[in-house]
Amino acid sequence: MRKILPQLFILTLLSSTAGIVAAQQLTPEQMIKNRKAGYEFMAWNMGKIKAQVVEAPNTYNKDQVMAAARTIASIANSGMGALYGPGTDKDAGSEKTRLKSEFFLPQNQDEVKKIATAFTGAANELEKVAETGNVDAIKAQFGKTGEACKACHDKFRKDK
Amino acid sequence: MRKILPQLFILTLLSSTAGIVAAQQLTPEQMIKNRKAGYEFMAWNMGKIKAQVVEAPNTYNKDQVMAAARTIASIANSGMGALYGPGTDKDAGSEKTRLKSEFFLPQNQDEVKKIATAFTGAANELEKVAETGNVDAIKAQFGKTGEACKACHDKFRKDK
Repeated sequence: MRKILPQLFILTLLSSTAGIVAAQQLTPEQMIKNRKAGYEFMAWNMGKIKAQVVEAPNTYNKDQVMAAARTIASIANSGMGALYGPGTDKDAGSEKTRLKSEFFLPQNQDEVKKIATAFTGAANELEKVAETGNVDAIKAQFGKTGEACKACHDKFRKDK
Repeated sequence: MRKILPQLFILTLLSSTAGIVAAQQLTPEQMIKNRKAGYEFMAWNMGKIKAQVVEAPNTYNKDQVMAAARTIASIANSGMGALYGPGTDKDAGSEKTRLKSEFFLPQNQDEVKKIATAFTGAANELEKVAETGNVDAIKAQFGKTGEACKACHDKFRKDK
């Protein structure tokens, strides 16, 4: 048994490591690149909604705003937490991060979770409200979603 | 009338220009940055599906694959066509584009539309199939979606 157990342990370890590898092995550089892409693309879609419901409601197009809100919500729910792995608390390779390293401190994890949950909730609600076509309601929920973005920027982004 | 008509024309022009401005005025650099973010984020999500249904089906997680497929479909349907405006046929500012300038030639527009429509259709189908939880079917549709991506890369990407 003494000989078999360690082997079983190693096999199990290898097998689960293989699983982790298969479930995407990203470098810190790639993780930072991917998460920045997610925020960039959400920002573009927030901009489209802002243009159509805040700046120029005469240009409002229900389908476009719905598509934008759906994109934001789907990115928010895409499991971006996986993109904050070890080594992504600072610039990596050619990728610079705007995230403060405090984001990763154990004592801030409750706050991070709270902010992330609030943002995802706001984005989900924005998607729902966009489907109603009620421009005033969309405008109000757009504002709340922006505030949910800002809560993280204020607390954890290097530049405001 | 000679005096009024040009004024009306100018007013109409200003008004519609204001509409266009409000509906997001992006620089070529920003358009390229945004579209690259969209492809980058789709690629990350394609990678997650590949890992879970092709490389290591023992790691398959229905919710994660559904979320990934939904993200790809929503980005595909987000109106990215708006990110191929004038000046984006070549590098702009600090943004490099991998797109061949042939993509923008009038004689290629039917082909571009065909490729884009096929990709969006494949992504929509992938989202539907992901909801069934049938790993073999997801794998098959994942393959078709990858081919739809590749059709554009082969034809219009500078590097393969």
